[in-house]
Amino acid sequence: MNKLYEGKAKILYSTDEPEIFLAHFKDDATAFNALKRGQIQGKGEINCTISSALFRWLESKGILTHFIEQSTSNEMRVKAVKILPLEVVVRNIAAGSLCRETGLAEGKILPFPLVEFYLKNDELQDPLLTKDRILILEIVTPEQLEEMKNLALKINEHLTQFFADCGITLVDFKLEFGVDSQNKILLADEISPDTCRLWDSSETDPLARVMDKDRFRRDLGKIEEAYQQVQQRVLSQLSQLKS
Amino acid sequence: MNKLYEGKAKILYSTDEPEIFLAHFKDDATAFNALKRGQIQGKGEINCTISSALFRWLESKGILTHFIEQSTSNEMRVKAVKILPLEVVVRNIAAGSLCRETGLAEGKILPFPLVEFYLKNDELQDPLLTKDRILILEIVTPEQLEEMKNLALKINEHLTQFFADCGITLVDFKLEFGVDSQNKILLADEISPDTCRLWDSSETDPLARVMDKDRFRRDLGKIEEAYQQVQQRVLSQLSQLKS
Repeated sequence: MNKLYEGKAKILYSTDEPEIFLAHFKDDATAFNALKRGQIQGKGEINCTISSALFRWLESKGILTHFIEQSTSNEMRVKAVKILPLEVVVRNIAAGSLCRETGLAEGKILPFPLVEFYLKNDELQDPLLTKDRILILEIVTPEQLEEMKNLALKINEHLTQFFADCGITLVDFKLEFGVDSQNKILLADEISPDTCRLWDSSETDPLARVMDKDRFRRDLGKIEEAYQQVQQRVLSQLSQLKS
Repeated sequence: MNKLYEGKAKILYSTDEPEIFLAHFKDDATAFNALKRGQIQGKGEINCTISSALFRWLESKGILTHFIEQSTSNEMRVKAVKILPLEVVVRNIAAGSLCRETGLAEGKILPFPLVEFYLKNDELQDPLLTKDRILILEIVTPEQLEEMKNLALKINEHLTQFFADCGITLVDFKLEFGVDSQNKILLADEISPDTCRLWDSSETDPLARVMDKDRFRRDLGKIEEAYQQVQQRVLSQLSQLKS
């Protein structure tokens, strides 16, 4: 196994099979473009487990993902894809940088799901890109961009309903896509409390309701408990769906 | 005359006639969201004169503007419009914040004219807005947005040709639009070396060619001379067109 890439939250290894990579989920947590660093105990296992469960469930809904199987508690075997260097953010409710940048009030329900694209580039601090900037930078083709947007909206519909059934409001989330050797676009990376804003639907207190990495970003405490709670609800909802 | 609004480079006054405002052009110069402040001797007169000339010329090309007449050397009588709070930037060549934010090389000729929208909001530091963010913020209607983009592209075609005939490359420029009492969209604000990036077409040296406010922003010296040179070329080109 060769280390192919080490990111802030995962390490990617090659395997004996050229079409398969192994993703190792770390406990390391970073925020604000890695200016803030820390560890969240058990995060690697929780995020690997939640992501595996959601990828498998999305596959059952017809969404193609890079997921093959969860091979250990914090490792996932995935299809070898080339990650497209865009972070695709879907927003249902205003929060985070959208509020800081536009002055929109946190918690405002958006009139339509907002799909946004950010350049994956730490040095440039992952800037927001307009459609035209993406085309000028030639990061993806116009057709790929359109397909990523449509996939993001479809995934948002599925996940919003799924999390609602868990008693969780899906505020926003970040997706990454990759292309396989046939140039097919697959959902990649992870779907976890690191990459989603998740609010406990039964809580109205704006701090108490937070069940995601904002607890780490904003020093709200009880981070591990929140991540565990998300895992528990996701797994229990999935076992209900099965039965 | 009542002062209606004082901006960084102009003061707007009401007049006896409710449908007419008076714009006074100041010598004050600011950059980097007013973190840098200074004066450019004679700038008020030059920018008022260049803007008046270009507005008049654009009107002759069928572009509706707020311009009525240049009443004194640094004052312009304009139609009373409500300014739409978007800065519309048209880019032909990569420069400034586009390069800083995306990593594009300064001087790269863009494959198509890029029309971008920034929120006029000092506190938020005039953030770049995507189309969807504009619609969610309800700053303008979708129809107004479309019309502003089309007008900006049309104005760019006219100005690019005009400046080329002056031996000047129009790199990028900022426009503001206003709506009159009939809700018609008019080009407003100014068109000047304060609001355009203008490069001397015969110069290849990246510092020597600069004929606009970047001389002030980047402490390149000979600011007044550059502004005077732009005025001289614009007026001389217009008198050639007349004869």
